[in-house]
Amino acid sequence: MGYFRDNVERADGYTPGFQPRATEVVKLNTNENPYPPSPEVMKVLAAMGPEQLRRYPDPVGNAFRQAAADLHGLEPGNIMCCNGGDDLLSIAIRACCDKTRALAYPIPTYSLYPVLANLEDCKLIEVPFDGDYRLPAQLAQTGAALTIVCNPNAPTATFIAIDELAALADALKGVLLIDEAYVDFAERNAVELVQRFDNIILLRSLSKGYSLAGLRFGYAIASTRLIDGLLKVKDSYNVDAVAIALATAAIKDQAYFRTNVAKVKADRQTLTERLRAMGLEVADSCTNFVLACVGAKHISPAPPSAGQIHEQLAQRNIFVRYFNVPGLDDKLRISIGTPEQNERLLAALQEILSM
Amino acid sequence: MGYFRDNVERADGYTPGFQPRATEVVKLNTNENPYPPSPEVMKVLAAMGPEQLRRYPDPVGNAFRQAAADLHGLEPGNIMCCNGGDDLLSIAIRACCDKTRALAYPIPTYSLYPVLANLEDCKLIEVPFDGDYRLPAQLAQTGAALTIVCNPNAPTATFIAIDELAALADALKGVLLIDEAYVDFAERNAVELVQRFDNIILLRSLSKGYSLAGLRFGYAIASTRLIDGLLKVKDSYNVDAVAIALATAAIKDQAYFRTNVAKVKADRQTLTERLRAMGLEVADSCTNFVLACVGAKHISPAPPSAGQIHEQLAQRNIFVRYFNVPGLDDKLRISIGTPEQNERLLAALQEILSM
Repeated sequence: MGYFRDNVERADGYTPGFQPRATEVVKLNTNENPYPPSPEVMKVLAAMGPEQLRRYPDPVGNAFRQAAADLHGLEPGNIMCCNGGDDLLSIAIRACCDKTRALAYPIPTYSLYPVLANLEDCKLIEVPFDGDYRLPAQLAQTGAALTIVCNPNAPTATFIAIDELAALADALKGVLLIDEAYVDFAERNAVELVQRFDNIILLRSLSKGYSLAGLRFGYAIASTRLIDGLLKVKDSYNVDAVAIALATAAIKDQAYFRTNVAKVKADRQTLTERLRAMGLEVADSCTNFVLACVGAKHISPAPPSAGQIHEQLAQRNIFVRYFNVPGLDDKLRISIGTPEQNERLLAALQEILSM
Repeated sequence: MGYFRDNVERADGYTPGFQPRATEVVKLNTNENPYPPSPEVMKVLAAMGPEQLRRYPDPVGNAFRQAAADLHGLEPGNIMCCNGGDDLLSIAIRACCDKTRALAYPIPTYSLYPVLANLEDCKLIEVPFDGDYRLPAQLAQTGAALTIVCNPNAPTATFIAIDELAALADALKGVLLIDEAYVDFAERNAVELVQRFDNIILLRSLSKGYSLAGLRFGYAIASTRLIDGLLKVKDSYNVDAVAIALATAAIKDQAYFRTNVAKVKADRQTLTERLRAMGLEVADSCTNFVLACVGAKHISPAPPSAGQIHEQLAQRNIFVRYFNVPGLDDKLRISIGTPEQNERLLAALQEILSM
């Protein structure tokens, strides 16, 4: 007998985006927000006392649940705090899936889903997106216990209409988890569906829209029936006292949040247009990153491959994300940085493409 | 098909110790340290900047791993950071156990183990302790993939000799996880075994000895072979940037830690003697709590039950832990508080027993 389960022995594990140690780099590879968190967050951090560290935190983070419920027009019982959105993905898969209860999702999408499915050793059904990353009709017919739709989708930056998600939830017998980690940068979201469907879980993250990737805080929005089940699966104290306090301050400061998101969206528009002007194919993005195809035929002479460009950018201390998998290996995922960072990226890209 | 797996639908979930909101209570029910964390921790907290919150944390917390390796005379590859010790328990059970690969442990012990086993839906083997909570010989013969020994044990506060744990590790084909959450208050620990046995995982917590229950930080100490496997199962970013920084500062300040632990141990001795003088049976404790048996025959007239005493203490805003299960239902688990808190407990107990 090996020390670990066979599926664990075989696992490669998830590879997080590269985290350069130097701070003077242009880091556009892990979709962090280029702007700092709200000053209100820093005020709460400065006021944290030893007593809050000494005592166990509230096991369910009721202060945050109330603030999130107020924001979304729901009840605290519709909210569950998580140690980052990834914690919720793990909890949902462990709650719903096993060898006979499948996980299904359209591909390409967030590369963590199959890693978690393998750890749970559950049945896995991957359904390719229809053209232009539209929802495949087959997704409603898989019989999966849990279906995940990342919306907006990573790494394609595309958006499925809320009506289509409603139709999918209606057709499914199992649970539909809509991974809205990037939804703060889209024009719509699926909160309205939570009151209509008891089988929908929304995943939210404070890593992107709220500039708190370092804090590990996400949350679920769902019917109380689903939240009650998920609470049984989460670690007994899955979010710490500092994270609860800072996350609560962050979502209460909606004015700062909206200004910050508006800046990222404006810079996204500029970056998209500039990349297109250089001959790259870039679909409209509903996230804080763009997916740029560098294999466009009308660039001549034949440009370097996406992998080569990724490498040459890294040599210039500019980091973007490259996925060496079919369907994505001619593309680069570029996080929206500050205007200055975006300019440095564009200048380097121009140089590399002209060589 | 239900939304959740049958084992999840059936689960009760873990019940954390009651967390009273008021701060003027005497809270001796969840084994927090009565003294604040190191001033060095508060300095690091005060110096945390927005950039550390904005960016993703180090996925494996190498700053902490190095500090812990230095402390224990091991390598960073022997350490894994966890979101509290409970995170490690969940990771180890998910890594090692399933329907055919059992989890085994002696009982009575930490009540979270069966909750996690049920969530994993794995085979479970509970072996009663021998008299005076000694290691049962049968534990070496279960064929379990993972055996957990809580040492010192909760809630009995008793200690298994390191040589006996070595013999157990030697006899087992699977993994031995020694839950040392309370070991900071014992005279010995099992670190020396990690270099002798590649199948041992030690669990450490910063919640008790380091006064950081609010921060959720624990860690594994094990062979690199085991750490490499556990790293594949943990969430990709399971500990946040604030927790990594504060936990690192905490374990570096060993002078403060030792002074703090010495105070708790001295107060434990006083509390034990005073409780015995009142006629309660209290075994010597190797933890930051005592288990006091109130069913002693030589108290006359017949004293109230442990459950009644627990209730009457709560009415006086004094909180201790009561487990309404066979073998424990005549006992109270009392965390070591400050001398003032311990005196308030003793006075209230005297009053209740005299009624």
